[in-house]
Amino acid sequence: MMQKNSDKRSVEVCFSPKLYPEILTKNDFIVVLVDILRATTSICTAFENGIEKILPVATLEEAKLLKGKGYLVASEQDGKKLDFADFGNSAFNFTREAIEGRTLVYCTTNGTRALTIAQNAKKIAMGAFINITALTQWLVGQNQNVVILCSGWKNKFCIEDSLFAGALAEKLLETGEFEMHCDAGVAAIDLWNIARQDVLTYLEKAAHRHRLKKLGLDDVIPYSFTPDSTQVVPVYNGKEIREAGLNSMRNGD
Amino acid sequence: MMQKNSDKRSVEVCFSPKLYPEILTKNDFIVVLVDILRATTSICTAFENGIEKILPVATLEEAKLLKGKGYLVASEQDGKKLDFADFGNSAFNFTREAIEGRTLVYCTTNGTRALTIAQNAKKIAMGAFINITALTQWLVGQNQNVVILCSGWKNKFCIEDSLFAGALAEKLLETGEFEMHCDAGVAAIDLWNIARQDVLTYLEKAAHRHRLKKLGLDDVIPYSFTPDSTQVVPVYNGKEIREAGLNSMRNGD
Repeated sequence: MMQKNSDKRSVEVCFSPKLYPEILTKNDFIVVLVDILRATTSICTAFENGIEKILPVATLEEAKLLKGKGYLVASEQDGKKLDFADFGNSAFNFTREAIEGRTLVYCTTNGTRALTIAQNAKKIAMGAFINITALTQWLVGQNQNVVILCSGWKNKFCIEDSLFAGALAEKLLETGEFEMHCDAGVAAIDLWNIARQDVLTYLEKAAHRHRLKKLGLDDVIPYSFTPDSTQVVPVYNGKEIREAGLNSMRNGD
Repeated sequence: MMQKNSDKRSVEVCFSPKLYPEILTKNDFIVVLVDILRATTSICTAFENGIEKILPVATLEEAKLLKGKGYLVASEQDGKKLDFADFGNSAFNFTREAIEGRTLVYCTTNGTRALTIAQNAKKIAMGAFINITALTQWLVGQNQNVVILCSGWKNKFCIEDSLFAGALAEKLLETGEFEMHCDAGVAAIDLWNIARQDVLTYLEKAAHRHRLKKLGLDDVIPYSFTPDSTQVVPVYNGKEIREAGLNSMRNGD
């Protein structure tokens, strides 16, 4: 009986950090972290605008401590910027004027938690529509399986991250380098193909989109769903997030 | 600003037992447990064929103990019937000849675990395509919110349970008695509407379908996706599963 084609690398989709312990991918893999509204879109934007590195921290206490030491700090809870912080986590905060050449301490409800959960990955790359093509090319260049990890909304399944998971999984499969044996991936690709003709209208069905609207924070949505405004691929190495794209071009991988 | 219409009851979809602690429904609710391939389809079949009650047990030790005391026992692990048991958990095991008027001890990989997770629900009803219309009518008759809990495959998202969740959520919304503010429900309904024209072809994409095929246990799939072959609504009361439909007709609720 035919076993799976061992020449191809696997791509797997995980709809929530709570489901991450259940992933089937066993060998070395790269996690693509997804938090479209907002962390991963914002982090890509920060690197597009020239930030040097980002230090994710898990607790407000750490963030406050580092603020006291003179770091720039981005921090939010339930979508709202916290008083002590320099920025919330809207992509529009991270202008070139504000962050070029700087180090940013980053503490968010959703995104930071997911980074700590995926520590067993070889690398954790930041995935967003704004870097989807560059990310795909970078993933093809790495000799690794891929797990696409949706942050979700407070650990629940969320539409916006799932649509991105479908879009990225489809792009990876189209390269011919990957195979997928994952029901969540099948569902994500099918949802993406329903939504892609008019994503902003489809998003009207998403709960988080309405939560952001209530907070007056939904201005960033069209930007967050416009593909390929940047070529950066931010990668977390267990300590800090840096731009991988430049390095991998230099190294030719 | 308009709040949600408090006259309507909520329906929420949960794609995995691992995500059950994250559900947003706070007030009283009924859980609809879903394990299309196989537990909930098999349990509905058993009641259609006249079983008196089912005692779900969580461990093989309990199942063996009760087998020693003369009970009929259904038990499987990873889809295969265990040697000591009378049945596996294929719906086709539960013929009228084999089970009418009897009590069955039931111990399965997926289904039993989900029953113990949802103990905070008012009631836990068994959902399957084979009882979907009767279940919808029964749920309308109860004055409760509804949480549709997919068993998944070893806690992972699975297509077959998600399609049923979408089909049931859509039917409940169509009654006008329910409202939904849940991304998982939106996704489930959209997937169901892709699949419904030709469910068996769509299922070729599902991983569990292939696992069953490998085990020679996929004969039950067309039956499991044919709606309304029974009017029974099996309900778990924290101790045993009994047929609720007869009682609720008698009580007029």
